[in-house]
Amino acid sequence: MLGIVLDRGSQISLSRQLFIAVQQNILNGTLKANEPLPSTRSLAKDLGVSRNTVSEAYEMLATECYIASNPGSSSRVCSGLNLNRVIQQKKAEASYTENVSKTVLRADFKTGQPDLNFFPRTVWGQCLREALLALPVDKLGYGGAKGFYLLRQEIAHWLLRSRGLEVSYHDIMICSGTTQALNLLTDLLHQPEHEFVLEHPSHQGLHTVLGDKGYPVRPIPVDTQGLDVHLLPQTQISAVYITPSHQFPLGGILPASRRSQLVRLAAEQDFYVIEDDYDSEFRYCGAPISPVYALAPDRVIYVGSFSKTLFPALRIGFVILPKALQQRWCHYRTFMDVQNSISEQAALALFLQKRKMDRHIRQMRNIYAEKRQHLLHAIHKIFGSQTTVLGDASGLHLVLHLPDADFSAPFAQQALVAGIRINPVINYCTSPDGHQDKLLLGYGHLTHKQIEEGVQVLHQFCQRYRF
Amino acid sequence: MLGIVLDRGSQISLSRQLFIAVQQNILNGTLKANEPLPSTRSLAKDLGVSRNTVSEAYEMLATECYIASNPGSSSRVCSGLNLNRVIQQKKAEASYTENVSKTVLRADFKTGQPDLNFFPRTVWGQCLREALLALPVDKLGYGGAKGFYLLRQEIAHWLLRSRGLEVSYHDIMICSGTTQALNLLTDLLHQPEHEFVLEHPSHQGLHTVLGDKGYPVRPIPVDTQGLDVHLLPQTQISAVYITPSHQFPLGGILPASRRSQLVRLAAEQDFYVIEDDYDSEFRYCGAPISPVYALAPDRVIYVGSFSKTLFPALRIGFVILPKALQQRWCHYRTFMDVQNSISEQAALALFLQKRKMDRHIRQMRNIYAEKRQHLLHAIHKIFGSQTTVLGDASGLHLVLHLPDADFSAPFAQQALVAGIRINPVINYCTSPDGHQDKLLLGYGHLTHKQIEEGVQVLHQFCQRYRF
Repeated sequence: MLGIVLDRGSQISLSRQLFIAVQQNILNGTLKANEPLPSTRSLAKDLGVSRNTVSEAYEMLATECYIASNPGSSSRVCSGLNLNRVIQQKKAEASYTENVSKTVLRADFKTGQPDLNFFPRTVWGQCLREALLALPVDKLGYGGAKGFYLLRQEIAHWLLRSRGLEVSYHDIMICSGTTQALNLLTDLLHQPEHEFVLEHPSHQGLHTVLGDKGYPVRPIPVDTQGLDVHLLPQTQISAVYITPSHQFPLGGILPASRRSQLVRLAAEQDFYVIEDDYDSEFRYCGAPISPVYALAPDRVIYVGSFSKTLFPALRIGFVILPKALQQRWCHYRTFMDVQNSISEQAALALFLQKRKMDRHIRQMRNIYAEKRQHLLHAIHKIFGSQTTVLGDASGLHLVLHLPDADFSAPFAQQALVAGIRINPVINYCTSPDGHQDKLLLGYGHLTHKQIEEGVQVLHQFCQRYRF
Repeated sequence: MLGIVLDRGSQISLSRQLFIAVQQNILNGTLKANEPLPSTRSLAKDLGVSRNTVSEAYEMLATECYIASNPGSSSRVCSGLNLNRVIQQKKAEASYTENVSKTVLRADFKTGQPDLNFFPRTVWGQCLREALLALPVDKLGYGGAKGFYLLRQEIAHWLLRSRGLEVSYHDIMICSGTTQALNLLTDLLHQPEHEFVLEHPSHQGLHTVLGDKGYPVRPIPVDTQGLDVHLLPQTQISAVYITPSHQFPLGGILPASRRSQLVRLAAEQDFYVIEDDYDSEFRYCGAPISPVYALAPDRVIYVGSFSKTLFPALRIGFVILPKALQQRWCHYRTFMDVQNSISEQAALALFLQKRKMDRHIRQMRNIYAEKRQHLLHAIHKIFGSQTTVLGDASGLHLVLHLPDADFSAPFAQQALVAGIRINPVINYCTSPDGHQDKLLLGYGHLTHKQIEEGVQVLHQFCQRYRF
């Protein structure tokens, strides 16, 4: 009947296979409406399977109303089921796959990449297991949008001992990293006819988010000290986004006078400041910069991340949020993705509580400081005195300035073809405005050897352009 | 000077304390612009700390431009820093805290709650640790919006062996649960002047998401067989959302004729169907219902969840997505929260690969089946013959129908005061329309004893209303 072939070696049960075969025959019109099906006894005999198998398949078909069972007579095909379509072809693989063949890179200066080889994975695995087993059983259920309270408490302790920042854990909300925080905050802070003020140049991610949502953006130029607060528009502002500890990408530290003026304006004009503190844990000459948040906890939203200090695929970050915004944050978070997963929140709480975090950051700060020194040395030796390096000595990247160069669009593309991954600062600009002579060099993930060879390769490539 | 008191027992370093104290004095106007600071030597002597401590504090102040250092003369306070505000008071605790005092519940029929006592936590902890240690180091970095490919492959295998569903892992996207999937899909599928069609009654979460975004909604009544497809509007449709395996909340199974008609209309009128398969793994009489997805993989988006089969705080779900939507899905996911965390994706892949999932679901299916029987028995015994139970024998809840009852708003509130948590079906309705005589009873998380006592308490409470 119907060309049904059952595969006894399959993972799918025989009854499920039979169900699918009959279903397909009904949907493609081979079995017509009201047509009687063979009895379970005769079909079982034809197919060489037990009568039970056929009964089970018929039961599934009846449950989903492909057939109507009639006690004492044959089951019949229900009507209105012919889809007039050929049985679905094996699907062609998508062109959008993850296994894109990649050029072999001879130099990879991508930014924001911590050195994952030094991540204490065994310790983290122990924390994961230990924390999971210690959780009260109800913590496996829904736990609320704010996040696991033990983690929030440990983050508060950590901010106090590492930054001198005194904050109640009630004001700390756990989230899935900075991207989620910014996505959520834009919805939270958007007001019709108001603009979001962004640094220029700045990371392009937030531009994309705001563009997708159709929220208006006003880029304001930065100088060597970060956002030029005097240039803030007189128009209505939804929020001002800043990276005051280490401006991304140019590396300036926002000075106290601009900080005070900004929070003063925020209060006067009634807007919020979003402080993205993406890598200030790694500062190589002097203490970490203190957050703007401390100046005005009712006007500044502090966004912290563990992507650089631990690892990007952890997806845990946090915000310190003015009380006036907390209820709406929880609403949006609940309907965005409910909450963070519990196991990793609990593991991170333990990692912080055991001071493993402090130790890891100390170790990585030394490692990154050495890498930075190595990079500076290589730049000086290979590029010579015509180049300068911009930005504060912190984070996982620096800015190379070649006064006569033009790193506009074709440069990075052709560099990639030549095996060099590099980010010109102009990529972070919404308009061509004089940053075309600057390159961003990420070094966190590179070995000393890779740094030296990378600078060599980059220099040769620049020479082809006569920079 | 300046009433600075340093706390030698504090977690905060002495230099950081000094920095904060001077900063506060500058911000509140006690130290005026251009005022000279004491020399490091004299301040160190006054405070009884090392000169190094003071130098460090001054350096931090200079870095952030609170003071200007002058070689050979005193450091001076920079101008424009007086915030004219009192030093921030210790913050009052938010009224919006998590420690709301709760009524002690005598009966808790909340829905969607698996029994977390049976979750194999030790096995899960082992999977977490084992999977983490086996990960290549680059998997700790950014891994792409689609999710960890090993997990996607294991889900594909599992769908094949448990549901007979043949799907390429390239079409499976990992997400942080159904809520995120629906939030993202609404943005993906929304078209101006088009409506989202929802079942009525249905879960209120999606209503809230669509309402927040301002996307128009058209509720269509369900009957005992789920969505009445004949009532679909002739207007333009962004997408149709259905729960075909076990309509939430009423429990109907969408019959084959309606399924075929729906996917036929989807092709004709060019809309997508969102199939939310939230609990069909737990079906107690017969095989799991086969997904609508199998009928039209290019028109149906299948949304699967592990919140009921494993635990809600895991936050892993998945969608099977038509190829035409995959690129935009990845875009939205990247800018929403980048990706899921890697450790739990890897642990779940291992849990599936080792067939621990199959075993856990088999065990829980038996446990829930017994609970359901126990609940049916208790209802029959205590409420007697005037009540009926609606819906297919699956999932973690059932619907109790008392023909003469009116469970509208005051009932559930007063029940809660009396220690009974209960969801009337009318809570899931956007209009009062004849479902006021139905109650939703979730039983997944209850013991047999709690079930029996809960039904008893509920019956007594109903009697006060003369139902």
